[in-house]
Amino acid sequence: MEIKGVIETLREELNKYLYDYMEGKGSYNKRVYEAMQYSLDAGGKRIRPLLFLLTYKLYKTDCNEVMDIAAAIEMIHTYSLIHDDLPAMDNDDLRRGKPTNHKVFGEAIAVLAGDGLLNEAMSLMFRHCIGKKDNAIRACSIISESAGADGMVGGQTVDILSENTKIPIDQLYYMHSKKTGALIKGSIISAAVYAGASKAEIDKLSYYGEKLGLAFQIKDDILDLTGDTALLGKKIKSDLNNNKTTFISTYGINKCKEMCNSITSECIGVLNGMSVDTSYLKDLTSFLLNREK
Amino acid sequence: MEIKGVIETLREELNKYLYDYMEGKGSYNKRVYEAMQYSLDAGGKRIRPLLFLLTYKLYKTDCNEVMDIAAAIEMIHTYSLIHDDLPAMDNDDLRRGKPTNHKVFGEAIAVLAGDGLLNEAMSLMFRHCIGKKDNAIRACSIISESAGADGMVGGQTVDILSENTKIPIDQLYYMHSKKTGALIKGSIISAAVYAGASKAEIDKLSYYGEKLGLAFQIKDDILDLTGDTALLGKKIKSDLNNNKTTFISTYGINKCKEMCNSITSECIGVLNGMSVDTSYLKDLTSFLLNREK
Repeated sequence: MEIKGVIETLREELNKYLYDYMEGKGSYNKRVYEAMQYSLDAGGKRIRPLLFLLTYKLYKTDCNEVMDIAAAIEMIHTYSLIHDDLPAMDNDDLRRGKPTNHKVFGEAIAVLAGDGLLNEAMSLMFRHCIGKKDNAIRACSIISESAGADGMVGGQTVDILSENTKIPIDQLYYMHSKKTGALIKGSIISAAVYAGASKAEIDKLSYYGEKLGLAFQIKDDILDLTGDTALLGKKIKSDLNNNKTTFISTYGINKCKEMCNSITSECIGVLNGMSVDTSYLKDLTSFLLNREK
Repeated sequence: MEIKGVIETLREELNKYLYDYMEGKGSYNKRVYEAMQYSLDAGGKRIRPLLFLLTYKLYKTDCNEVMDIAAAIEMIHTYSLIHDDLPAMDNDDLRRGKPTNHKVFGEAIAVLAGDGLLNEAMSLMFRHCIGKKDNAIRACSIISESAGADGMVGGQTVDILSENTKIPIDQLYYMHSKKTGALIKGSIISAAVYAGASKAEIDKLSYYGEKLGLAFQIKDDILDLTGDTALLGKKIKSDLNNNKTTFISTYGINKCKEMCNSITSECIGVLNGMSVDTSYLKDLTSFLLNREK
């Protein structure tokens, strides 16, 4: 399944924004910008910023006014990938079919490229908030929190500490709700808060974000086992080889496929129960279920 | 020379804030908070947050209303030290007389502790800005920019790329104005902007911050050559052994001592020319010149 029309247009606009933002930057420090741009332009699906933009679009017409925040979200996601791939972390050589950042730029510059992207994301969001109302700051605050030690960084911490260990189910859920779920959910809720959605709608979108993050991770685990290396652009069976506790090792492949389907249906159900037109978000949700990478 | 009275009280208040902020945090992710707290509590001089608080105090009476931003500045500084010490970067075993973060927690958790501190700093600042006026956001924006790829991260990039290379003087100045100077200057300007200083006063403080950062770095280079390992809490002569271009290798030790004195005098001169009482800032400036660690 391919996503076309509005979603593809938004993706292209975001890609252009990211490219223009980084292009030509730097002087003596040019190398770190090259490393930042290398990973930003490595062909990501842009799921998190798209979720942000499409959620914003539920309530507002012009997504371009928050394109910088969408770009910041993708920078945060990209920084986390660069650091996760480091030799001291998951030690991955390939990401999206390309050599990982440290393979091209060396470990020191890869650490700095990650740091640079995280800083840049926050700077973009602070600049955005100048002259804006409180809902803009609240939105950026939600995104920032979702990336931190009680969000994405916390999830990666538990992932690192759990290597070669069989972890209990509650810890597995914690790990993924933080490592993958936090920024997915944060992208959705922040957009709703920014756009002035009602408390009731924010609650629904929060539930949707929570479930979508879970379905996304189970799908990732399935693809890691059954996916196509060429399509995925990275080694498959890495979880198995790293002796990691996953949804597959916990529930088995068939149950995981079932869970992925039923949680996705639940997500669509929540979107159907909303007062605004959620068709683009539903398209993206189905795309995530059926993706092959 | 010791700093007493108001400055010492502010330092203690900041230390308490940082300790209370981190203490008891975390669940499955507790280890990353322990690593963050380890480096935060490792006995830093708190120069940058003190510069922020003392500059704010030039115009406002209650520093406690911006203690969270001061804490954020120290978190940013501490994150940068943890990442700089990594084996792939400067590969340092000792910092402030204690084993470096990765020596205690391992490299993966050290990367994450740095990431966690940077994220936490930004989250603190976003939370601070909720319900505040634009000058708060502008201040946080200045701090965030000073930490980024055109600030501290950029300086560290040039430092890494310059190892075992003789670099020209303009590149040496660039490197230090970014690596050390940016956050020092940013701490001062952001406080002045937040406190509503006039354009003319901000310009003076900006010049002061620029020069102070330079004097600070030259003093660091002097201490690296002539300092006491026990007092410094880290190996001396690391620049010499790493074959780095420094102010010492460029100008020689005597000229550097002269420069440090004359730039400090210039800093005091700028502070004397201001319309507000700058005595605490002058005390801190003299302390930085005469410090032995």
